[in-house]
Parts: sequence; structure tokens; C-alpha cells
Amino acid sequence: MNQAARASAPASIGNVGVGFDVLGQAFDAARDTVTAHRETEPGVRLGAVTGIVDSLPSDVNANTALAAADALLKAAGTEFGVTLDIDKQIPVSAGMGGSAASAVAAAAAVNALLESPYPIADLLPFALAGETVSADPPPWDNVMAALLGGLVIAARLEPALIAPVPAPSGLTAVLFHPDAKTETAAARGVLSEHVPLQTAVEHARRISAFTLGCATGDRALIRAGLEDVLVEPQRAFLLPELGAVKAAALKAGALGCSFSGSGPSVFAWAEDADADQVQQAMAEAFVAAGRGARAYRAPLTSEGVRLEPAPEAVR
Amino acid sequence: MNQAARASAPASIGNVGVGFDVLGQAFDAARDTVTAHRETEPGVRLGAVTGIVDSLPSDVNANTALAAADALLKAAGTEFGVTLDIDKQIPVSAGMGGSAASAVAAAAAVNALLESPYPIADLLPFALAGETVSADPPPWDNVMAALLGGLVIAARLEPALIAPVPAPSGLTAVLFHPDAKTETAAARGVLSEHVPLQTAVEHARRISAFTLGCATGDRALIRAGLEDVLVEPQRAFLLPELGAVKAAALKAGALGCSFSGSGPSVFAWAEDADADQVQQAMAEAFVAAGRGARAYRAPLTSEGVRLEPAPEAVR
Repeated sequence: MNQAARASAPASIGNVGVGFDVLGQAFDAARDTVTAHRETEPGVRLGAVTGIVDSLPSDVNANTALAAADALLKAAGTEFGVTLDIDKQIPVSAGMGGSAASAVAAAAAVNALLESPYPIADLLPFALAGETVSADPPPWDNVMAALLGGLVIAARLEPALIAPVPAPSGLTAVLFHPDAKTETAAARGVLSEHVPLQTAVEHARRISAFTLGCATGDRALIRAGLEDVLVEPQRAFLLPELGAVKAAALKAGALGCSFSGSGPSVFAWAEDADADQVQQAMAEAFVAAGRGARAYRAPLTSEGVRLEPAPEAVR
Repeated sequence: MNQAARASAPASIGNVGVGFDVLGQAFDAARDTVTAHRETEPGVRLGAVTGIVDSLPSDVNANTALAAADALLKAAGTEFGVTLDIDKQIPVSAGMGGSAASAVAAAAAVNALLESPYPIADLLPFALAGETVSADPPPWDNVMAALLGGLVIAARLEPALIAPVPAPSGLTAVLFHPDAKTETAAARGVLSEHVPLQTAVEHARRISAFTLGCATGDRALIRAGLEDVLVEPQRAFLLPELGAVKAAALKAGALGCSFSGSGPSVFAWAEDADADQVQQAMAEAFVAAGRGARAYRAPLTSEGVRLEPAPEAVR
């Protein structure tokens, strides 16, 4: 019987520009790692916190990893409890899916302690229960991407149907995390409750073209589709230089550029051969705007959650 | 130099349920045929009208075939004119794309008289100019489907980008044309100018799932996606038995069921093996509603516009 298990999950690009609340993309430029230690006492507790943060909330209802672990233990009806060590490498409140990655990694680590572990895809509801901490109801995009890897669609919510979207080969995602923070809940709060029918149609046109382009590898369709006409116009004010960064990326050859999730991070898709110049152009636009920003890159085929070698049971 | 040329174009299913103003599907259960006779006198005139109608408008601005021919002749700058014989086999005001088929067939027939004919796909703007007669601005769905055949997406309007969506093999489209008429312009007039953001998201989710399902042949994704949450709820009142017909189709195994275009025709997608029972179930639902309705069937791979053997030049 394992005394400890460890799992890591990648950052992710929520919405993928054109797919608000529908598409998500794993972005393996950084991973959160959670180590679950089996405890005799029931319940979920926070253990060591390492990485880019000094501390994390220890309240189960305020920590996506703890909440996911709690939901899983309750569903499995275990008698044991867990302490979770969290190594955080994904920037917080960056729009890089860090909260989802921690929730997914926690669910997978705790799952590995069960006598009869769930199949990985079946961890979705537990990871979503964790993500509820950051937004209620929880958006699926980051969670499913961190779980499955690659590009993923939430094809149906009830009953749940998530599916991989074939990722075109030869493409790279470039992402900039600027020195600015947005909260998912706040970024959702600015959205209008109604949109013009014409906007809904143009949004549907783009996501359909984009999905078809990904499935068939057709770059012209991806370019036609990789644009957010639904929510980006309502959120652009959150990052005043977004327009300039986007224009620079497109001019440098990017297939599309938009907020990652609800921002403030900005991502672009580029041909592998164009990725350097796209990154350079975006970096210069941030500099011109006087905004510090850190660049990340990952292929579209980024791996989802995975078990890592478990630590020695020394606790 | 040809004195006459003839082309036929298929009926079509506008919107394909989930793809309002974005998707169209050729439906080769009936075709309109247009014969263009070269005339010394410039301009476009209506010749013989045959088929299921006794007459058609002879005014260029009131007849989609004449309007398409007129737009093409003007663009080509020809010195000759044409007389168009129209054999109409697609029911009028049925939501079966009859006006688009006539426009497409006319454009293709006249095109064949040009010294340097346009590639078929480049006939889109002329056929759209014809379709403007039935709705302004003209929806693209029927026109592009009648032109290219199969399932087609309008991926971008400006500049125009239309593309085939791979049609899954083994599926049949079943369509019922009930004894009721709707006018495209009127059916568009009932639509609300704004929709809830949540509806726009659910609509995008479905068209993305549907497109992916078609491209990959995944029936579960097609089922998840082939549902119109955007406009069908607003138009359902136009055909009170729609709900019953749809329920019957789905219960009989259909992958989805909705209005064809703006109705009143209703179509369903079914596995080839289920098509008989789906058709039977829909027929019974129409009977139960006391509505006469005629059934049509065609594969998803329906052929688009094609040239037909030209008649002898006897005029």
C-alpha cells in the first residue's frame, strides 16, 4: 500500500482565444506538482509549500488542490486522510491555469493512493470541484486541458463529454505573462449578459472554422477562426497594450493571438519556424508599452497530468 | 462557340441545424436545371419555365436565376445576352434551398458560355447576387452547398473563405417538406437581435463539437453537437408539430433533427441503417399532427452544381 504518491499537471491556455468556456489547451511550459501523503486521520491538510509562492491557503474551501482531494476522498469513501505538499511553478492569477493544474495534480496524486483508482478522465468532476474555489460554477477549459493534455473540447456538459481535438503538428504556442493580475471571477464579471445575435453567429463561425482547421491541419481555416469576437472586446481594457501586442504577433506571422483564459497573459499560435520572430515582436510590444512580461513556449502536443516518481515514505 | 449550356444544382439544407448562417449541406433529392441560350441582344430574359411551377418572375430583380446570370454577365463584360429556361424541381418556399439552386445553376450555365469561364468556386459572388432576391444580405449556406456539394462551411465572409467539411460516411439525411410555407425574410424577422451570452456559448460548443465530429467521424460528438439552441427556439412556433417530429426522430435513432434553413421543412441525420425507421417515425408524427408532408432522402455526399448535356441549339 503506497504511503505517498506524486503527480504533476501542466499550465494551460483557457478558451484558446476562440473557444470561450469550450476549448482548453495544455501548455507544458510549467507544471504544478502535488505529493499526497497517506494519513491515518481522515480529512485533507496542507503540507509543505514550495516553488514560486511562499504560502497557500490551508482552508479546504480556499485551495483548489485541497478541495479536489477532499471531493475525491469523499466520493471514494476512504477511511484515510491525506496531507498535500504542493510545489507551485505556474504563476498565480496569471491566466495560465495554475489553480486548475494544482487541482488536477492533487486529484491524480490522491487517486493513486486509492485501492481502486479511477481512470484519469473520470477525475474531471473532482478536479472541477477543486476549481470551484477559483470560480463557481467552474470553467472547464483549464481543468480538462491539464487532465488530458493537448487541445481539448468540452463537447457537452451534462452528461459530461470531453474530447481531444487533433493538434496540428508544426505549431508552437507562445505566451507572455505580463506584470499585471486579473482574477477569473472579476474578469467574468465584466461580461455583458447579452450579445448581439450577429456576434454569436460570427463567434460560431470562427470556432467551427478553427475546429475544422485543427482537425484537418488547414492553416487558412485556423487563421480564419483563431479570433475572439465574443469576450475579448469586452475584456481588452484589462490590458491596454493587448491591441498592440496582438497586432505585432499577427504581423510577425502568428496564426492568432488573444488572452490566455481571462488574462492578463496573452498567447499566440505560430508555425514552429515563426515562433522566434513572433515572440520577439510580442516582447517588443510589451517593452514599448512599458510593461514587464515573461515569455513561455510550449508545443500544442503538451502532455497532461502524469504520475511522478513517488518520494520515499519518510514522514 | 456554344450557343447554349445547361447546369443543374441540388436542393440544400441551410444551417444544418447547428450552423445558423455558417453551415450548409447539399441535398441531392431534387435539382433545379437552368439552360442558358446565347442571344445577340444584351441582358437577361426568362425563357421556358417547366417542372413543379407554372411560372416564375420575369423581372431580373425578382428571380434569383436571372439576377445571378445578370451579375455574372456584367462582371464578365460580355456583349451577348442570355435567355434562361428554368426547370424547377425543388419546392418553392420550402426551406430546401430552391432559390439558391436556381441561382447557382444559372451562374454555372451562363459561365459555360463565357470565353474564359470562372472556376466553379469563384461563382460564389454571382450566385449570392442572385440569392439577394430572396434575402438581403443573402445567407450563404444554401448557395455554397449547392455550389460545392456535400457539407460546407462559410469560414470567413471577407475575404470569402468557404471550405468542405468532411462528410462522415454511412449517414443519410432525411427531410420532410410539410404543407406549410415560410418566407426566408419573414423567418429571419422573428429573430431577436440579442441573445444571452450563455446561449452564444452553448451554440458555439455545439457547432465546434459537430464540426469536430464530422471531421473525425465521431458519432458521439455529432450527436452532442447537432442541436440548434440559437434560432430554433425562436422559430419553433412556425411549425407547431416540430417538437413532436423531432422527438420521434431522435427516439428512432436520429443523430439530430431541426428545421432545414428557416423551415418549414424539417431534416434529420441518421445512420444509413436507421434511415427507414427515422423516416417512418417522422412521417407518423406529421400524420398525428394532421399535417401533410412529403419525404425526401439523400446521402451527405450529395453532388453540387454540375454541367448537364447541352441541348441542341435550335432556338
